[in-house]
Amino acid sequence: MTELTAQREQAARDYDALVRRGLKLDLTRGKPSPRQLDLSDGMNALPSTHLAADGTDCRNYGNLQGLTEIRELFAGLLQVPAAQLLAGGNSSLAMMHDTIVFSLLSVVPGAARRWADEGEIVFLCPVPGYDRHFALCERFGITMVQVPMTAEGPDMDVVERLVAEDPRVKGIWCVPKYSNPSGVSYSDETVRRLAAMTTAAPDFRIFWDNAYAIHHLTDEHAELADLLALCEEHGNADRAFVFGSTSKVTLAGSGVAFFGSSPANVAWYLANLSKQSIGPDKINQLRHVEFLRDAEGVAAHMRRHAELIWPKFEAVDRILTKELGGTGLASWTAPAGGYFVSLDVPEGCAKEVVAKAKAAGIALTPAGATHPYGDDPADRTIRIAPTYPDLEELEEAITGLTVCVRLVATEKLLSQA
Amino acid sequence: MTELTAQREQAARDYDALVRRGLKLDLTRGKPSPRQLDLSDGMNALPSTHLAADGTDCRNYGNLQGLTEIRELFAGLLQVPAAQLLAGGNSSLAMMHDTIVFSLLSVVPGAARRWADEGEIVFLCPVPGYDRHFALCERFGITMVQVPMTAEGPDMDVVERLVAEDPRVKGIWCVPKYSNPSGVSYSDETVRRLAAMTTAAPDFRIFWDNAYAIHHLTDEHAELADLLALCEEHGNADRAFVFGSTSKVTLAGSGVAFFGSSPANVAWYLANLSKQSIGPDKINQLRHVEFLRDAEGVAAHMRRHAELIWPKFEAVDRILTKELGGTGLASWTAPAGGYFVSLDVPEGCAKEVVAKAKAAGIALTPAGATHPYGDDPADRTIRIAPTYPDLEELEEAITGLTVCVRLVATEKLLSQA
Repeated sequence: MTELTAQREQAARDYDALVRRGLKLDLTRGKPSPRQLDLSDGMNALPSTHLAADGTDCRNYGNLQGLTEIRELFAGLLQVPAAQLLAGGNSSLAMMHDTIVFSLLSVVPGAARRWADEGEIVFLCPVPGYDRHFALCERFGITMVQVPMTAEGPDMDVVERLVAEDPRVKGIWCVPKYSNPSGVSYSDETVRRLAAMTTAAPDFRIFWDNAYAIHHLTDEHAELADLLALCEEHGNADRAFVFGSTSKVTLAGSGVAFFGSSPANVAWYLANLSKQSIGPDKINQLRHVEFLRDAEGVAAHMRRHAELIWPKFEAVDRILTKELGGTGLASWTAPAGGYFVSLDVPEGCAKEVVAKAKAAGIALTPAGATHPYGDDPADRTIRIAPTYPDLEELEEAITGLTVCVRLVATEKLLSQA
Repeated sequence: MTELTAQREQAARDYDALVRRGLKLDLTRGKPSPRQLDLSDGMNALPSTHLAADGTDCRNYGNLQGLTEIRELFAGLLQVPAAQLLAGGNSSLAMMHDTIVFSLLSVVPGAARRWADEGEIVFLCPVPGYDRHFALCERFGITMVQVPMTAEGPDMDVVERLVAEDPRVKGIWCVPKYSNPSGVSYSDETVRRLAAMTTAAPDFRIFWDNAYAIHHLTDEHAELADLLALCEEHGNADRAFVFGSTSKVTLAGSGVAFFGSSPANVAWYLANLSKQSIGPDKINQLRHVEFLRDAEGVAAHMRRHAELIWPKFEAVDRILTKELGGTGLASWTAPAGGYFVSLDVPEGCAKEVVAKAKAAGIALTPAGATHPYGDDPADRTIRIAPTYPDLEELEEAITGLTVCVRLVATEKLLSQA
């Protein structure tokens, strides 16, 4: 019996034992845990006043751009001047959705026509990436073209070539810091090239989903180059749409979302928004300002998040290393921020690993979700979301997952032998 | 000197005196007053728990349709079964906007294609009506066709003819109870005919903006026939989109909005919404449920609103009657609910009255705003929003307005003499 066969048989026995345990564990979504949400308990009693700094009665209609004080609080954190930042309701996803809707149904600055009146439009999708971005494109009939991620962000040689040669390419999805799911933060050079590159489409837009701008796991904070400033510097002031939110800062369902861009884009967004809304929930914005206070208050709050979730990321790395390290059966990321670990298994194995895990009571994000159309051509990438379960459950789930990886990967290798 | 000339000269002297007073009063928008907002002070300390009745942690992501308990609380009030009601964020306007967007970019049940792929689409607009409805149509390139309002709702002979003969007619805007701005409530027969009528378009929709469903000013409550039930009864189950919100119940900027419809339409809406949102602000929904408690709690709360604003509506009617009654220069509504009084002046006078009022420091909704494209062909209708100013300011503003009406109308009559 070869060593590989022995490994497979051990894995099969381990898997049988795993199934017999009848687990029921969920690693599917990047949700904060109840203990993380408890960190915002202090918001309950806020705000202490309904008056904004400028005297606005926040209980009434109005103020489409959002309260000045919350825009000032997050301007630096999101690298957008407060005057060019818009504070809205509870979801940056809704703002991304609406930005695409506005682009489809109104003419974005610099465009010849509405995107709905273009024959076909294309978005570049660095992979692995965020499934909800891809779902938005699919929902609106926007063609997706994959671009591989590198350790510095999307492969810029590929990006530059595609945007230069094809005017149908109107956008690119970016999670520039602690990327979902790889944890990669874009290098200064990547950001500069995104800002400076020549695009065939005059209305090309970078959808800059800075979801994890302040979501550090360690004291080594990734620093992102200032995209808006670089775009302006390179004569492409209107190129970037910046998004962010407090969903993973305060309460996931009751946060404040942000849109930031050039003055022309902000005016365009507000003109569209003025037909959709009379103003955001300013009481909730005031609640956030009183609770978080200032940039230092935000940083202190985010350190408390990190104290709760860093041990979970450590556990994932520790167990993957112990069970799979040196086997050649898997590789994975060890991010310094964000919400995910990306696990790569041998080509053609990801779907089967996820299915085996499911059969053993461990729910994972569907294999392929990290790629456009839910289709990972190499069937290799699995997204792990460690934040929601408690540590003990997480350790059980990851240990179980490694059994599935060993089983599926050794079987695959044997079938190829 | 004729009597009319004397009236004109008196009006001119009164207007000069009015201008010299240097007023600064605002009757433009239907906003609750600070004292009305104070009625919801008790919400500050709520919710007392973050757990919904079914155990859901309302602080986290999820629950796209909104909390069961708030849907159950408003189901009866909005005449929509709770299972077919969706509770969202702070604005029914956003839901109306998004419903049109979804209809443009997805295929509504019963439609042959997306509305964006139709050559031209038309909405019927009962006039006078709500300017933000018209702004939505204009923004999306939807042609608006006026239908006159009667004391029972839109002129159904006109509506039935237009929807029967023209498949481009895809929608009608309705504020069925205490209508904006006329205060008219649709009769049972009007609702029945809307539900039963034959439409050339298989995907015709009634946009039923039940904004003032519970906003009674007196103890005589208008009762509305059940549109959803009637549509189903007449074989047109998918015809109605129902909207409502708590914006004028609790806090105008921080309310909960509702969408209700047939099961097929709700499934369609949720499928579209699932790409836009991971869930509404459930903490705010819980806050509303704890504060309003039940239908009786809502009714008691609305009576307190009425106690605050009924004296304002009384004052408007009293002053208009005193200053303009019997002159033949104006007619106006005396609504039993809602937020507006509609004032009709002689044909060709509304713009000039609003301009004269503005010059005297009294801001009114622009003349024409009650009609599509901001164009009241008869230039006759002025919308008065009495709720926001305090009583003394309101009395000053309405008295001043009557001076402007007397001046402009007598000049007009003299010029025609």
